[in-house]
Amino acid sequence: MRTQVAIVGAGPAGLLLGALLAKSGIANVIIEQRSADYVLGRIRAGVLEQTTVDLLDAAGVAARAHREGLPHDGIDLCFGGERHRIDLHALTGKRVMVYGQTEVTRDLMEARAAAGLPTIYEAEDVQVHGFDGAQPHVSYRRDGVEQRIEADFIAGCDGFHGVCRASVPVAAITLHERVYPFGWLGLLADVPPLHHELIYVSHERGFALCSQRSHSRSRYYLQCALDDRVERWSDDAFWDELKRRLPAATAAELTTGASLEKSIAPLRSFVAEPMRFGRLFLAGDAAHIVPPTGAKGLNLAASDVGFLWQAFDEHYRGSASGLDGYSDRALHRVWKAERFSWWLTSLMHRFPDGGTFGARMQQAELEYLVSSRAAMTALAENYVGLPMV
Amino acid sequence: MRTQVAIVGAGPAGLLLGALLAKSGIANVIIEQRSADYVLGRIRAGVLEQTTVDLLDAAGVAARAHREGLPHDGIDLCFGGERHRIDLHALTGKRVMVYGQTEVTRDLMEARAAAGLPTIYEAEDVQVHGFDGAQPHVSYRRDGVEQRIEADFIAGCDGFHGVCRASVPVAAITLHERVYPFGWLGLLADVPPLHHELIYVSHERGFALCSQRSHSRSRYYLQCALDDRVERWSDDAFWDELKRRLPAATAAELTTGASLEKSIAPLRSFVAEPMRFGRLFLAGDAAHIVPPTGAKGLNLAASDVGFLWQAFDEHYRGSASGLDGYSDRALHRVWKAERFSWWLTSLMHRFPDGGTFGARMQQAELEYLVSSRAAMTALAENYVGLPMV
Repeated sequence: MRTQVAIVGAGPAGLLLGALLAKSGIANVIIEQRSADYVLGRIRAGVLEQTTVDLLDAAGVAARAHREGLPHDGIDLCFGGERHRIDLHALTGKRVMVYGQTEVTRDLMEARAAAGLPTIYEAEDVQVHGFDGAQPHVSYRRDGVEQRIEADFIAGCDGFHGVCRASVPVAAITLHERVYPFGWLGLLADVPPLHHELIYVSHERGFALCSQRSHSRSRYYLQCALDDRVERWSDDAFWDELKRRLPAATAAELTTGASLEKSIAPLRSFVAEPMRFGRLFLAGDAAHIVPPTGAKGLNLAASDVGFLWQAFDEHYRGSASGLDGYSDRALHRVWKAERFSWWLTSLMHRFPDGGTFGARMQQAELEYLVSSRAAMTALAENYVGLPMV
Repeated sequence: MRTQVAIVGAGPAGLLLGALLAKSGIANVIIEQRSADYVLGRIRAGVLEQTTVDLLDAAGVAARAHREGLPHDGIDLCFGGERHRIDLHALTGKRVMVYGQTEVTRDLMEARAAAGLPTIYEAEDVQVHGFDGAQPHVSYRRDGVEQRIEADFIAGCDGFHGVCRASVPVAAITLHERVYPFGWLGLLADVPPLHHELIYVSHERGFALCSQRSHSRSRYYLQCALDDRVERWSDDAFWDELKRRLPAATAAELTTGASLEKSIAPLRSFVAEPMRFGRLFLAGDAAHIVPPTGAKGLNLAASDVGFLWQAFDEHYRGSASGLDGYSDRALHRVWKAERFSWWLTSLMHRFPDGGTFGARMQQAELEYLVSSRAAMTALAENYVGLPMV
């Protein structure tokens, strides 16, 4: 088979890239090791920046998001037993949309299937070849038969553990990483959300986040130890611990219920540089990871894809500058979002080795933050998403 | 001898408190272990917030500062080989004044001597007593004779290594500390300043600061290793290293000359809580230390003293609420300035253990900072000094 852009990975990054390229008349094939159901089963974040919604619009897949997504004009920061609203819209003129990543993925999959665009699921032993030359290709095995897709370019949208970044020679890539000494224990439940906006909680027992996917589905998180195990947490234990980290009046409003899912995820900051290697372009988690605080992961994947789409579009219209500039342009935005995610993570969590001075710096920063319009605006403009420049 | 407020320490905090109390008609005696010349020989920072100038005005000692001090409307942040001006005045409506701490101390000493207010220099074996009861006193030895000053209150303005904080029972005080893995090598020289405002430099070889005391006296600093020794640094070596950390065009404008003084100082963040123990009140370095980045040390000492002056004034007018509120009120401002000093220090210095991710976070934060009016305003409002509330 031959195509213009071979996309490895059918997560939201690969699917969105495929949809946008199709809009530009650029042929593409998506190769995914997992099944569609497996991809849809992954529970991820659900806060979309306006730039992400704009890209979904450009791809023609945002109708349900506009119908069912929840526009949020603000967030609450909770510390010292009090809640402080950050009015994102008043401070920046922008808002965010709560719409689960799973729903984004579903919308993209359904649109792709309806358009008859080729997606190969359950491709075994996917490998990328020849991207340092003029004729790259992707090989895989399907139903026991070796297959090969020739392409002008390969887009590596296959996530942190994917094959694309791992195929780059070690000497050609620089990795930057920070691992945090805690994880997030998440619980998903079909109960009405505690509050119509998100509540980020700094508490001496650890961070907590009260979030939601819809008016009837809530997602809560608790900071936990890295060696904690989900089996240790009954639903009751989770709800009790969440209540302990909330002000009493807020805890009293919490609706509890049986969990649909509970899991523990570690927190990691990671960036690989550059994001282009000859005819291989990385996008999304394949190139960088943020801790979930601030919900930048999906949004960064979307802006990478937006830049990459523009670059391919320019290329096929006859200009090479877009492809040449992709890595720098994407990384410029990536590093700023990495900084924001690292900062918000560092501000809101308990650090086992931070000492009392570290804890007091957090407290002073939170108190300063809610007292300063400038500081709140700086938080807000990052939260709603820095411009794609 | 008997007085209303016995002040331990004749640095700028003690002298300013004495001057302000005298304005309110409150009798005070200052007891200092060192000689006046020794106190004047200490080289310290020289950036005054407007609130500090206001307090010097209130004490009637700001005439020379207004005449000779240099109003600064901005600072430069230098990184990646480029200088970026932060327009403090445009962002906040406020400015700072460059006027050396030594000059502040000299003005205060001369005004105190002219007013005939009692200061006991070279007091040996100073001790504070009975501050947990109703009748505190300060004892010392002068010319071999034991002396005793009875007072209503004792003000501990005797610095980090002073006797006042050390006299508080360990169980009554909580200490918070952060020690940084580097120091500042400072050089004072009678050469015209490189620039009419301060330049804060983030460079891969380490932080540098180009500052000044007057139009003809410059003060430069270089981040150095904690185990470095001033003997290793000839003047030429200092100037060469400074030039390496500056953009070439800026380095070319540097006027070098023989040093008047060179020294290495460690960087430390330190806060003792509370700042009141019965009839003993701590102010300035006796209670807290900031790293010099951002020049908050003298300004925090001044605001402590401003709060303490108001508290004593209220007390002698018949209200106890000022004294009862002093510690919380002072610490509220102290913690915010500690946060700013810690943040600016963390942003601008090379950290041996920060790794490449840490260095990239600094770079991303600097790039974000100079791109965001909100972030620059947050820096500026802290730099010019948060309000005394």
